[in-house]
Amino acid sequence: MTTLKNDLLLRALRREKVERPPVWMMRQAGRYLPDYLKLKEKYDFFTRVQTPELACAITLQPVDQVGVDAAIIFSDILVIPQAMGMEVLMEEGKGPSLPEVIQTQKDIDALRTDGAEESLKYVFDALSLTKRELNGKVPLIGFAGAPWTILCYMIEGKGSKTWDKAKQFAYTEPRLAHRLLQKITDITVHYLKAQVKAGADTVQVFDSWAGSLSPADFKTFAQPYLFQIADALKETAPVILFPKGSWYALKDLAESNASGIGIDWTISPKMAREFTGNKITLQGNFDPAKLLAPVSEIKKAVKKMIDDFGMQNYIANLGHGITPNVPVDHAKAFVEAVKEYEPSVVSSQW
Amino acid sequence: MTTLKNDLLLRALRREKVERPPVWMMRQAGRYLPDYLKLKEKYDFFTRVQTPELACAITLQPVDQVGVDAAIIFSDILVIPQAMGMEVLMEEGKGPSLPEVIQTQKDIDALRTDGAEESLKYVFDALSLTKRELNGKVPLIGFAGAPWTILCYMIEGKGSKTWDKAKQFAYTEPRLAHRLLQKITDITVHYLKAQVKAGADTVQVFDSWAGSLSPADFKTFAQPYLFQIADALKETAPVILFPKGSWYALKDLAESNASGIGIDWTISPKMAREFTGNKITLQGNFDPAKLLAPVSEIKKAVKKMIDDFGMQNYIANLGHGITPNVPVDHAKAFVEAVKEYEPSVVSSQW
Repeated sequence: MTTLKNDLLLRALRREKVERPPVWMMRQAGRYLPDYLKLKEKYDFFTRVQTPELACAITLQPVDQVGVDAAIIFSDILVIPQAMGMEVLMEEGKGPSLPEVIQTQKDIDALRTDGAEESLKYVFDALSLTKRELNGKVPLIGFAGAPWTILCYMIEGKGSKTWDKAKQFAYTEPRLAHRLLQKITDITVHYLKAQVKAGADTVQVFDSWAGSLSPADFKTFAQPYLFQIADALKETAPVILFPKGSWYALKDLAESNASGIGIDWTISPKMAREFTGNKITLQGNFDPAKLLAPVSEIKKAVKKMIDDFGMQNYIANLGHGITPNVPVDHAKAFVEAVKEYEPSVVSSQW
Repeated sequence: MTTLKNDLLLRALRREKVERPPVWMMRQAGRYLPDYLKLKEKYDFFTRVQTPELACAITLQPVDQVGVDAAIIFSDILVIPQAMGMEVLMEEGKGPSLPEVIQTQKDIDALRTDGAEESLKYVFDALSLTKRELNGKVPLIGFAGAPWTILCYMIEGKGSKTWDKAKQFAYTEPRLAHRLLQKITDITVHYLKAQVKAGADTVQVFDSWAGSLSPADFKTFAQPYLFQIADALKETAPVILFPKGSWYALKDLAESNASGIGIDWTISPKMAREFTGNKITLQGNFDPAKLLAPVSEIKKAVKKMIDDFGMQNYIANLGHGITPNVPVDHAKAFVEAVKEYEPSVVSSQW
């Protein structure tokens, strides 16, 4: 095993003292990077995801070009519905679509949960290759979608503002919803463990649509499955949970077996620390739209963010994925601002 | 002046004791009602909005057919950009678009703020006609978009998931953003006062995209203008502020001169009461997607909601507009459940 030259991320997740917070950006691999856009012109989405050499090259780009403290494997959360037997289409600029959605218990029972190791071999190959290429430079992050978010796509068949159909399904057929959520959880646990075996140092679980649920419904349909995943991975690798929008669950999530919680920008760092009682490492929460502000404003806002979170038990990141319209220089400014961080005389007590 | 036969809404806004909470639904006029859909086939959107007889008929439909305790005038928040001189198009099923967006100080300075009385006469006529037709049956609600939300449309020119461009404008040109927000505020205050003069008993300010802002940015770009509006209307009529998603601002908003705050379903009633210290009437917060659940589930959830908010200083409503796919019987069940409400033995102390 190669020793990590930069293990800031892992130390922050273990709540060990760091000289400065680690920094990476959700969706850092792809989208806004010119070298990615060149590959995008040549290869379609699933070719990029399913060819380990391409996925590896895309994963390394932001490490080399933007200077982040971690690599996150280039992949997609919808590889899980694929591995379970559903067709997933990705039309450029249009988002994903699943032509045959889940409607009945028969549909749910037909989903495979044993297919991950074999059908997602390309993800593990990409991780192993990337781990080798990184040669200990920074840690490698694996990831999966959270069960609630995957259910959303399986029921709706495409993106939605309100996730009405998914919620109607959950509210009308709760027994079936739990049956489906459990199946997704089972395969996701296998998948994440296999990612760690293949080279991931830590894994993040993206619950991108958790925030569409009320606190009570989150507790019913999202939280138990996030907890199951954190429990199952406990002895394997640190887990970061990112239930976007679910600020109301922070107190509960701080009691989970996860090592970190991602938060978006609709909660102040101070409140997030209060809700979690500083029991768990927090990750976030820069408004991605603020990367469109002038560089001087970005740097000021990053400094303020770290002052407010405090330097320890903290991972600097965005509150959601970087958008394609962000200039590379602005992404670099974000990362540099974290690296240049000097605590203010009066900074957070955390 | 006709005496109101049902003044539950106004009493709840004045924090007076009520026998049961008043109930209405955001977007109750239109969309899911078959009689509305018939008018929609015959007349385009702005004809429906700009013809007082049509707007009045549409406004009355849910009062007569669903039994809500208030009428809200059928109109649109984008009549303000129109009155300020911008073109607004409404393509059925596609949402609004503004072909010429605001980009420069010159664009902002060219916007009119004195045009409301004249160019929005059709709104006042619709309110007066509806007030007469209601004949004191229930109160009539007027409304406007909040300055931040109107700015979003003026800058982006159409709906957006992330409001990147509006936020980029605010973060990059804060001086211009405030200049624009102040102009929108000025005309909105005139507009709301004129709505009250024409017959509105109370007004609601919809800040539909407030939740896209961080707590600090909300305080900079949204809150001051909401406060200005509440201050200006203080002696005129009770104001309900509805900054969707901005749970973090509840404490501050409870100190405003508004009479009510609308909240969405991503906060529990208990937390909303805590944040506002029960200083202000709360309105909400049923997940509109839950209207797609079976009627028995809707009734159970409504009872739980009222138990949690408490019967006083409370207006039963959805947490966002009703969606077109809701069966009329389910909307009726929501309203009936509020009317049938009997407190549980152990209910909220508020």
